[in-house]
Amino acid sequence: MSLVVMKFGGSSVGTPERMQRVAKRIIEKQQEGNAVVVVVSAMGDTTDDLIDQSKTLNPNPPAREMDMLMTVGEQISIALLSMTVHGLGGKAVSFTGWQAGMRTDAVHGKAKIIDIDGSRVFKALKEGNVAIVAGFQGTSEEGDITTLGRGGSDTTAVALAAALKADVCEIYTDVDGVYSTDPRVVKNARKLEEISYDEMLELAHLGAAVLHPRAVEYAKHNNVRLVVRSSFTYNEGTSVKEEAVMEQGVVVRGIAFDKNVARISILGVEDVPGVLANVFGALAAESIDVDIIVQSGVADGKADFSFTVSGDDRERAIAVIENNRAEVPFRETNSESGLVKVSIVGAGMVSNPGVAATMFKAISSIGVSIKMVSTSEIKVSCVINSEPLADVVRALHTAYGLDTTEQVFVGGPSERR
Amino acid sequence: MSLVVMKFGGSSVGTPERMQRVAKRIIEKQQEGNAVVVVVSAMGDTTDDLIDQSKTLNPNPPAREMDMLMTVGEQISIALLSMTVHGLGGKAVSFTGWQAGMRTDAVHGKAKIIDIDGSRVFKALKEGNVAIVAGFQGTSEEGDITTLGRGGSDTTAVALAAALKADVCEIYTDVDGVYSTDPRVVKNARKLEEISYDEMLELAHLGAAVLHPRAVEYAKHNNVRLVVRSSFTYNEGTSVKEEAVMEQGVVVRGIAFDKNVARISILGVEDVPGVLANVFGALAAESIDVDIIVQSGVADGKADFSFTVSGDDRERAIAVIENNRAEVPFRETNSESGLVKVSIVGAGMVSNPGVAATMFKAISSIGVSIKMVSTSEIKVSCVINSEPLADVVRALHTAYGLDTTEQVFVGGPSERR
Repeated sequence: MSLVVMKFGGSSVGTPERMQRVAKRIIEKQQEGNAVVVVVSAMGDTTDDLIDQSKTLNPNPPAREMDMLMTVGEQISIALLSMTVHGLGGKAVSFTGWQAGMRTDAVHGKAKIIDIDGSRVFKALKEGNVAIVAGFQGTSEEGDITTLGRGGSDTTAVALAAALKADVCEIYTDVDGVYSTDPRVVKNARKLEEISYDEMLELAHLGAAVLHPRAVEYAKHNNVRLVVRSSFTYNEGTSVKEEAVMEQGVVVRGIAFDKNVARISILGVEDVPGVLANVFGALAAESIDVDIIVQSGVADGKADFSFTVSGDDRERAIAVIENNRAEVPFRETNSESGLVKVSIVGAGMVSNPGVAATMFKAISSIGVSIKMVSTSEIKVSCVINSEPLADVVRALHTAYGLDTTEQVFVGGPSERR
Repeated sequence: MSLVVMKFGGSSVGTPERMQRVAKRIIEKQQEGNAVVVVVSAMGDTTDDLIDQSKTLNPNPPAREMDMLMTVGEQISIALLSMTVHGLGGKAVSFTGWQAGMRTDAVHGKAKIIDIDGSRVFKALKEGNVAIVAGFQGTSEEGDITTLGRGGSDTTAVALAAALKADVCEIYTDVDGVYSTDPRVVKNARKLEEISYDEMLELAHLGAAVLHPRAVEYAKHNNVRLVVRSSFTYNEGTSVKEEAVMEQGVVVRGIAFDKNVARISILGVEDVPGVLANVFGALAAESIDVDIIVQSGVADGKADFSFTVSGDDRERAIAVIENNRAEVPFRETNSESGLVKVSIVGAGMVSNPGVAATMFKAISSIGVSIKMVSTSEIKVSCVINSEPLADVVRALHTAYGLDTTEQVFVGGPSERR
């Protein structure tokens, strides 16, 4: 008998019809001979509605009380889903985070899982029940209710799968799996059968919103086999695991892009040790995430360097640099927003020279100039103007042989939560 | 320093304005030098909305899962109320039932409190916080979430007050206190300053919806001083305690009435031992509550008896009796609904002869005939036609010297939950 963890996001249970469909699917999985643990998120807008309600009473509430409030969304989901399973003749028991033994640190709003005591869940399974566990939540050592922050339910599912030594952790979403690129941009995007944790991590970080990076890291660390699949179809989905089989001749697995990128350049910086640490330390202190950093050569003891931030942070970042001028003198800054970072990702890259060159050639062949480049072992990223992004992604998709002629399922009726 | 438990019902926190008012009131109570524990119910329609939602998925859900669902209503209230207290500069910590140590049996939907571990609440108080506890909920020994059933938040408040040895348990509602009768019926109803547990119990059972009988019993058993008062005014309220001081010349404390009463009579019943046990055992087995039972004399070895049930149960009750005819033979039944039970309640009654006679005289003086009578040490109940109920209650109110000329606050903007 296999132990399967099935995770359903909020949009998968957002209406009574969808709730029924999910319940049916859970029962089928059990009837196939599996022990089934389900992790579910808050339905549709429940959590947003609660946050709105709280804002009218206190725009700046204590994080502990916010966690107390937000976790009811998942508690509603588990209760209703369990009832629905019973209504269809199945057996289910719901568990809040604390009941499922999800122990976290006490950092409200973004707690980390410390330990899972799976005894109650195991007992429920042994008695023939489906165990339905609230995602996104746990309790601290003091017994306070905590939330795991963004992507929390994915992380709950993976952590439970690791703790219970599940055979597989299935992440149900409203797309059919992980695609070679966004199917809304490239019509003949290819659904991937397999992908490695590292590749998935790069894609997840790069804006493919199908699976939260933290959950992927957790899965990699604990060697949990993930499957990303649709709650609306019975298609196979994408398997995420340590070593993903490469198809013949495919070096690049996928193409991701991140819109709303801004470039900031600092020119004529005095090249003394600790300059970079000083600048980026000041930005970090203001919680400004810096992505690509490029330093060009030093001349006359002066250096130029450029980095990217989210377009929303551009003005704040420049203010930080200006305020820091006494410590890090420079000649001038310049910046631009409305840029895009396009990345190719693939574990095979490291042993295939010329992969980056193919990228540069494909981009330049449609008359787009590259502003910045950054590379890692399994990815190459280029910063370009946001127009014509779709043409660039399409050109890259073709250049790396990713186009498929298969009919693919593109997106569900709503965005994934 | 006194320890005060303040309980607020759902209508007291049903809007942001009311929530703010309650938070202000809590802070004031603390600033007067009290340690303050607050018990709060679910806001307005939250629980009803959740029940409606569940019905669409499973009209007959497991009680355990229903408790899982319903308890989120109070969790939302405690979180929002705590945030509101913080927003006004106060310090508060919210606690679910399990966090507050409310241990119950495992009878989902109507659990009984077994034990309270008040250590977390005490710790919060010691640190200068208001402790805000979710009413209506607890956990079983197995760690399942339970609800206490109807009147549950009142019971939570009283039980907490007993466990924490509070000086007083204040029940905030949308009326100013306990009245000598329903102020909607008798305009010059009198607000009672004091009332004994037993009197309150009779009034509570008899339909004065201000305080749940179970909470009163719990208070009596644990000698918790209760005060019923308004969350909308700063008026004194009514104190409920063991020995309430009787005002000069007042024998009857209040007049309660229960609409929707049906009378059923069984005539010509063979008078053998065990007949009554048989009939009323069969009714109890069908969960039909029988109130007043009157047996008239036996003639020719045949007895007649009459009893009252809720008007809604009349037809079912008659069917039970008919089905039971083989065991308890009788000549015929007759019944009528649309009746009312009017009761006078007062601990002084026992030492004042003629109290019942005054009642019969007041009722007959306006041409109403009495169908059934039942007495206890501290009350007399009469079953009469429902018209003219208001005239009867007014006549009794005057006859027992309960009329006041004071201006009284009559009802809040909405019904109490």
